[in-house]
Amino acid sequence: MKLRLSKRALQEDFQGNFVKMILEVAAKGDLISFAGGLPNPASFPVEEIKAAAIKVLETKGSYSLQYNSAEGYGPLREFIANRYRKQGVNVEAKDILITNGSQQALDVISSCLVDPSDTVLVEDPSYLAALQSFHLYNPNIKTIDLNEDGADVEQFRESMNKYDHKFFYAVPNFQNPTGITYTNAVREKIAEIMKGKDTFFIEDNPYGELRFKGEHQKSLYTYLGDQAILLGTFSKTVSPGLRIGWIVCGIKELMQKMTEYKQLIDMHTSTFVQVVVTQYFEDNDYDAHIKKIIDMYGKQCGYMLEAMDKHLPDDMHWTHPEGGMFVWATLPKGIDAVEFYKKAADAGVAVVPGEPFYEAKRGLGTLRLNYTNSKPEDIDKGMSILAKVIKDMRK
Amino acid sequence: MKLRLSKRALQEDFQGNFVKMILEVAAKGDLISFAGGLPNPASFPVEEIKAAAIKVLETKGSYSLQYNSAEGYGPLREFIANRYRKQGVNVEAKDILITNGSQQALDVISSCLVDPSDTVLVEDPSYLAALQSFHLYNPNIKTIDLNEDGADVEQFRESMNKYDHKFFYAVPNFQNPTGITYTNAVREKIAEIMKGKDTFFIEDNPYGELRFKGEHQKSLYTYLGDQAILLGTFSKTVSPGLRIGWIVCGIKELMQKMTEYKQLIDMHTSTFVQVVVTQYFEDNDYDAHIKKIIDMYGKQCGYMLEAMDKHLPDDMHWTHPEGGMFVWATLPKGIDAVEFYKKAADAGVAVVPGEPFYEAKRGLGTLRLNYTNSKPEDIDKGMSILAKVIKDMRK
Repeated sequence: MKLRLSKRALQEDFQGNFVKMILEVAAKGDLISFAGGLPNPASFPVEEIKAAAIKVLETKGSYSLQYNSAEGYGPLREFIANRYRKQGVNVEAKDILITNGSQQALDVISSCLVDPSDTVLVEDPSYLAALQSFHLYNPNIKTIDLNEDGADVEQFRESMNKYDHKFFYAVPNFQNPTGITYTNAVREKIAEIMKGKDTFFIEDNPYGELRFKGEHQKSLYTYLGDQAILLGTFSKTVSPGLRIGWIVCGIKELMQKMTEYKQLIDMHTSTFVQVVVTQYFEDNDYDAHIKKIIDMYGKQCGYMLEAMDKHLPDDMHWTHPEGGMFVWATLPKGIDAVEFYKKAADAGVAVVPGEPFYEAKRGLGTLRLNYTNSKPEDIDKGMSILAKVIKDMRK
Repeated sequence: MKLRLSKRALQEDFQGNFVKMILEVAAKGDLISFAGGLPNPASFPVEEIKAAAIKVLETKGSYSLQYNSAEGYGPLREFIANRYRKQGVNVEAKDILITNGSQQALDVISSCLVDPSDTVLVEDPSYLAALQSFHLYNPNIKTIDLNEDGADVEQFRESMNKYDHKFFYAVPNFQNPTGITYTNAVREKIAEIMKGKDTFFIEDNPYGELRFKGEHQKSLYTYLGDQAILLGTFSKTVSPGLRIGWIVCGIKELMQKMTEYKQLIDMHTSTFVQVVVTQYFEDNDYDAHIKKIIDMYGKQCGYMLEAMDKHLPDDMHWTHPEGGMFVWATLPKGIDAVEFYKKAADAGVAVVPGEPFYEAKRGLGTLRLNYTNSKPEDIDKGMSILAKVIKDMRK
């Protein structure tokens, strides 16, 4: 038989193909890896999840193994809403839809808001799997450059005047891939420009709790209320393997449509996992747990920045994240990041070139470097190898 | 702000609206319910899942809480493939994609195969949440009537000649909603008609293991090989709250596209749940467990058929399922099922009218009755109430 795929399946996936290529290179050998985006497994609360699972199966066994409602487990939605309120963000449990990680949240939002050729706005560079998710819905994607203090406000204003966006998707805290955080001033200006327009700010915030330096910046919800849709996840603070994320949306009609869509795509997120993670929160000090991760990642980031200062040439520059998992580095002029990452892999170090994080820009000299998963000595050794690769490429 | 939903979100959802109406009626009071589709929680292996969760967290804790690959956990795919092979269906682990229940499998398949206006073929009546899932992709849906021995072969032949289908979606074992099972003869004829054409048989098989009477009928895979795509789930034999289903697809290119799509919509199914359920299978006699469910449901079905014989009028007829969870009944001529279900709910019994299971037919006198979740005395009492409602409606 002849296979007749849908147009959607046949669509070119630049980001996807690029990631595949990276994984193939990375699979070649035993590399020092700055390429991943994985939380450090040393941070997983294995014992506590075990205790929670036992308790759940002993006290709510049948409930936790039965079908549940599409919007998610009530007590988990309550816990999340409470946590927002403690942080000064006025969210109610009814405004929360539980998803399989925040990756699914992207699909749910796009499905309910985006028709083909609608314009959506993203950061440049942006989270690559968000770009891929949006591409499924064939929007016109417009981009806003990132500065050290967040999205470029003047570009944002121009884009708002010029295009009719369905939403602006951004990761304002410790962005993936750049590690950049929007200042309160930038948040406020962007909110002013958006306020009252028929468009949403999608605030994706997987790393917000992982601040090891500086001051907490306010959620866009504080400035925009229901015009901000928030995405959250426990992937970086509890465990990504559970697959628990959520959407906060204060607009009842949209929440209802998203819940109906969630029901059609997979009924609901695992009851068992939702009840277990809720039990974990009930019986443990989540803040103390996060504090441990912050201490770990803060140190790791410090090691990496130190090693970069020590080994990398003066004509390179990089971001200095105050939290999250990534440093974003720019290679010396004339060195192509794609060529660099191949040579680096041959030399024993995996990095991710910036290319797939851009919607359209190509041939840039940017790299994403992850620091959460390497030993200090490997970070140092890895950076010295990268420095040597740069030196060789200059010849 | 003005909310601007996508066309997809604004689309009329007859099935969804109908289900909402049913749930509202059912929520009114303390009803005897034949309306659900839930497995009996008495069948959940709570203790065994607890033991598995403990073992997993003690021996593979970090692994089970980390990100995993989109296609699913290797040993789980091996287990599923082995089980197929034991049943004479020649499946390999690489042909299996793990999904969040088989509901997600429907979305994955549609996304990769269906463009707007493509024709897809379904049973009439069909599984209502499959209809809803397909509607998201705007196909032309054509229908095939069901007879007691399966899909109407002559109608199927005509439809194959007249339309260019992307696939035929069917539940050949103990169908939802009718309880009907395709005989091997019907399977063979349908396979003959399809063989070599550029179309798939999507065999959704949530209830296949739950046969309490009669002979096992062969999977369409036996007749059609890679031209059959199989959907499976542990929702009806282990627990629906875990959310583990899968797709079997022997066509490498399609499997790759589906895996890429799965990665974009939610990365992967919960690692934790996949590893726990695999541990459960390693340490327990799954067949013995299924045997217990079969015994339970066989008895429950017997009670229901007995009560129907005893109470319901002679001018009604119904299916006699050999497995699964549902009986399909046809009311006496002139009694509308939608009116009936409202009156039945007022009288204290919840049923599901057939209406939302049909793509287009309306105003029929069919009902879906679930027997897996009621006590024998409630089944008897419920049927006597339904008989009284019918009697009153005839006046």
